[in-house]
Amino acid sequence: MQGAASAPGTARPEGPVLGPLARLLQPRSVAVIGASADPAKTSGRPVEYLQRHGYQGAIYPVNPRYEQIRGLACYARLEALPAVPDVGLVLLGAERAQEAVRGLAALGTPACIVLAGGYAEAGAQGAARQAALKAAAGPMRLLGPNTIGLVNVIDGITLSASGALEAEALAAGPIALVSQSGGIFSSLLSRAASAGIGLSRLLATGNEADIDVCDCLEYLLADEATRVIALYIESLRDPPRFRALAARAAALGKPLVAYKVGRSEPGARAAVSHTGAIAGADRMYEALFRQAGVIRARQFSELLDIPAALALCRPLAGRRIALVTSTGGAATLVTDNLGLQGFEVPDPSAQTAARLAAIGPDADWSLEHNPFDVTLAGFQPDILREVFSIVLQSPDYDALIVVVGASALRHPEVIPDAIDACRAVTLKPILAYISPAAPALLSLLNRRGVPAFQAPEACAAALAALASRPAIPVAVQAVSGISGPAAEAAAGALVTRSGLLDEQESRRLFAAFGIGSVREFALDSAAQAAAWAGSPTAEALGETVVLKVRSARIAHKSDMGGVRLGVRRERIGAEAAAMIGEVLGRSGQVPEGLLVQEQVSGAIEVLLGFRHDPQLGPAIVLGAGGVL
Amino acid sequence: MQGAASAPGTARPEGPVLGPLARLLQPRSVAVIGASADPAKTSGRPVEYLQRHGYQGAIYPVNPRYEQIRGLACYARLEALPAVPDVGLVLLGAERAQEAVRGLAALGTPACIVLAGGYAEAGAQGAARQAALKAAAGPMRLLGPNTIGLVNVIDGITLSASGALEAEALAAGPIALVSQSGGIFSSLLSRAASAGIGLSRLLATGNEADIDVCDCLEYLLADEATRVIALYIESLRDPPRFRALAARAAALGKPLVAYKVGRSEPGARAAVSHTGAIAGADRMYEALFRQAGVIRARQFSELLDIPAALALCRPLAGRRIALVTSTGGAATLVTDNLGLQGFEVPDPSAQTAARLAAIGPDADWSLEHNPFDVTLAGFQPDILREVFSIVLQSPDYDALIVVVGASALRHPEVIPDAIDACRAVTLKPILAYISPAAPALLSLLNRRGVPAFQAPEACAAALAALASRPAIPVAVQAVSGISGPAAEAAAGALVTRSGLLDEQESRRLFAAFGIGSVREFALDSAAQAAAWAGSPTAEALGETVVLKVRSARIAHKSDMGGVRLGVRRERIGAEAAAMIGEVLGRSGQVPEGLLVQEQVSGAIEVLLGFRHDPQLGPAIVLGAGGVL
Repeated sequence: MQGAASAPGTARPEGPVLGPLARLLQPRSVAVIGASADPAKTSGRPVEYLQRHGYQGAIYPVNPRYEQIRGLACYARLEALPAVPDVGLVLLGAERAQEAVRGLAALGTPACIVLAGGYAEAGAQGAARQAALKAAAGPMRLLGPNTIGLVNVIDGITLSASGALEAEALAAGPIALVSQSGGIFSSLLSRAASAGIGLSRLLATGNEADIDVCDCLEYLLADEATRVIALYIESLRDPPRFRALAARAAALGKPLVAYKVGRSEPGARAAVSHTGAIAGADRMYEALFRQAGVIRARQFSELLDIPAALALCRPLAGRRIALVTSTGGAATLVTDNLGLQGFEVPDPSAQTAARLAAIGPDADWSLEHNPFDVTLAGFQPDILREVFSIVLQSPDYDALIVVVGASALRHPEVIPDAIDACRAVTLKPILAYISPAAPALLSLLNRRGVPAFQAPEACAAALAALASRPAIPVAVQAVSGISGPAAEAAAGALVTRSGLLDEQESRRLFAAFGIGSVREFALDSAAQAAAWAGSPTAEALGETVVLKVRSARIAHKSDMGGVRLGVRRERIGAEAAAMIGEVLGRSGQVPEGLLVQEQVSGAIEVLLGFRHDPQLGPAIVLGAGGVL
Repeated sequence: MQGAASAPGTARPEGPVLGPLARLLQPRSVAVIGASADPAKTSGRPVEYLQRHGYQGAIYPVNPRYEQIRGLACYARLEALPAVPDVGLVLLGAERAQEAVRGLAALGTPACIVLAGGYAEAGAQGAARQAALKAAAGPMRLLGPNTIGLVNVIDGITLSASGALEAEALAAGPIALVSQSGGIFSSLLSRAASAGIGLSRLLATGNEADIDVCDCLEYLLADEATRVIALYIESLRDPPRFRALAARAAALGKPLVAYKVGRSEPGARAAVSHTGAIAGADRMYEALFRQAGVIRARQFSELLDIPAALALCRPLAGRRIALVTSTGGAATLVTDNLGLQGFEVPDPSAQTAARLAAIGPDADWSLEHNPFDVTLAGFQPDILREVFSIVLQSPDYDALIVVVGASALRHPEVIPDAIDACRAVTLKPILAYISPAAPALLSLLNRRGVPAFQAPEACAAALAALASRPAIPVAVQAVSGISGPAAEAAAGALVTRSGLLDEQESRRLFAAFGIGSVREFALDSAAQAAAWAGSPTAEALGETVVLKVRSARIAHKSDMGGVRLGVRRERIGAEAAAMIGEVLGRSGQVPEGLLVQEQVSGAIEVLLGFRHDPQLGPAIVLGAGGVL
């Protein structure tokens, strides 16, 4: 996907660092050296897992003791392989792994993985053995040794012996994981599969003789399938590089979430003997993470829970949280934890309270106070939908937490269905806390796009992470042309990040160079657009306007239903809601907001693009614009 | 079980507070007022749950709209009931509940439960309604209103509408729960059932118009089926009484574990509107809990995890923890959290290291360092057993944590079997941390008596709770007769708690009054006994000794295989190990330790007992002793 790829049978070309890592994660062929036909052995697993999870490339087991393994031809020696593999997966013990690595390098294999332990984590002799292994690899990239391998969930590629791959199905999604521990890699893979949390690529770096956490991070920042990166860190070998990569991640809007082990002396000592890395003082890491904008997971479970929320929700615009619950006690528990994280759980304004009261005449409902208790309304889908909508459209609240009680166990679809029905009216985060033990419901909610939590502490921590993200500008603002040094400074500030700019950002960049544009207004949601349509500012734009979604991830908005022309002013709210629903349905993406623009006719459309290739340098693209 | 019980059809006699509470939890008959035949309604659930969970008493549904409900005769009015019920379970709304309560009281029903909300939690009008409800109950005890009811797991009695009772099976065990919130009651009931954590009795006190947390606590302190009490507290109405009960709990050796909500301002406010109780400042509760020896659960999940450890393990004698793991990364994670709680994870002494090295000649095992990594030894039951035994017998460690990796998913019985095989050699706590998502394995381990954790933080917190318990004296000590004021003072110090005294405590009490006894030595484990057998002190006792288990919970030790006569000195270790295994197998109880006594013959055995009945006053029992 990224960078240059070597054709099978040719030597690895010189090129950017990304090349071999992309090849490592997306190999067209894999040699499994030391594969066993015995499924009870660890060395019997990788071939089985590749087949089970649907690997489409060629698998070459290498072992002189077998003719065949699981229906595949087995080769006695590396030299007998029919083609040079893209990746060599070495399952041999430390004594024999070096010879295999040397052989793979001699063939011109771009990358290899060595699972065996007994290297730098095992004293001075092991460290010498690791240096020899690295030397044997030569220019070939090496993951490990002392690693459990990697899993590319998006493409169904498993280069790993992890027992967590016994899971029937892995959920694919936008969260990547880099772990310095193979055991933790397995733990998180297993827990994510069970909770329905979608993963993109997972790498265990082990002893990091070559490929380290920063290499993986650099690859994942360029990986389009990855939107959030979770890191399990024992020790960073190159903090300045990590800091620079974290800054790039911030500019790209890809959050990093880290759990750092070694906070106590016994833990730090155990980490050393485990992967041979010496852990730095915890407070140094604390400062590094804070400066670099890395979100720290304080509890181990939060290393999945926080990324799940970041992957599924937009940043939080404020700290006022609404809770809708079918169980008062659990809502109190969540509220208490929200309070500890500095959130407010305010009662509704008179206007919102009146809308809630209008749902039904039964005075027994506890809808006057937040948390809003719908216990007595029973579990009626239409009432839930209406309560959710009112709360989400209310200017009183910045996010909604749905607290799910034991009553939901009988009707697991009701809550996700009701939330789906409200997606069109809001871009505010919606999260779920599940009070009973309900693993199936937890998985269902996560898979349906609602981050769901079993721990009240994790729910509050996830919301805090959403609040820590830079908010997308909400204020209504008009853009006008400026020029001169101020413009260059403004432009400089805008181009610090790479990747697609969204429409508003692009126009602001042009404006900084004095290129004018139509008048436009950024709005946050359909509800806000409906309210804005009655304002004098809206009237000044004329009877009809152009309505567009804002998104940095959706390049061809009109193909996705994200542009509507000639929208009459009084229809703005309704059309906006319908448009957001259509875009979500077609692209699977929740837009970040809306743009309302002046409608202009009789002009010529021009495409103007700019690209900075790391090898080739800067380039300008000029062409016919619009939908062509 | 406790106190006086009223016969059906008679008015409740005057008596101690315990009477009606015991009756409430163990009713011989239940009237369910407002029961519905519609299983979709909340009022349709309680009769269904009573039948499903095997209630053996009489069920009287009361509802003028039905002739029958679920095969039971349904009564139109309370006056039509065939007998006075032991408990009235009122499912009616707040408007009609008061009339039903008045009717139950008029019949002479000992106790009732009112589920409806709309009382003190709902403003001034609700508070007045609650006062009227209390007045209508008269001398009848009342649980609620605004409660989800109670569950007596030991006896299969469910007086509740909690959706958590949809669970097929509840695990019975020694942990009681008192919750001021019905939602949290349901949450914990559901989570315990899922995790295989055994519960005794659960009560939700709701608005506490009559029965409050302290009443429940008093009942549970006298309840023989309960060994640990978990409390979910929003607000204590009578802190001095709570303090006194906590002191009694400490004297009885029944740990209290509390989770207190209302630590933040929004949480405190939500608690008020939820059950009408005003939460005090959190630091006041913090001080109260510390002074009263109440263990505070900091994370919600710890309100089950800590009691599970306390119920299944003896107190921790020191802070040196051994970890045996099949996954290095997870062991590092647990070790790090142990360090944060002040535990040590020291490497083994030369002697223990030599014993581990002797298991097998393969130098690749990482058994030189703690955590002990058995990854490369594979998942071989005999090796696991041997590693566990050596570590448990080693004087280097006070407890063992088994860290379970993904490899255990294929063979879930291996770890619990290996732990069972080592029970006889130790009384040290054994806990398990489970690294992958493995709910079935978690439940299996808990049900097999090994407290198991999915959060490394909870594992460390549970161990800290075990370390905070008063240690059972381990030092070898001989008892000799004393008398006079010092004896009375010593006796006074010994009789501050009620219940069974163990053998050593009884003899110390006699000794305080100058009644001598045979020479005896308290030992901690079979391993310690084996070591002690070679000492000069042991030689002085003669060639044969009496070996007994120490336990405050096992009254008839010889029936359980807990007494062996004429044990030759060189056989002490082996016989002690076999005896502990036999006692565990027969009684299901892990003894607290061992006694080695001088063997005496030609004397007369006498039974001397003392009992203080709360109604009848003190009594002395004198009779023929021994096994008769």
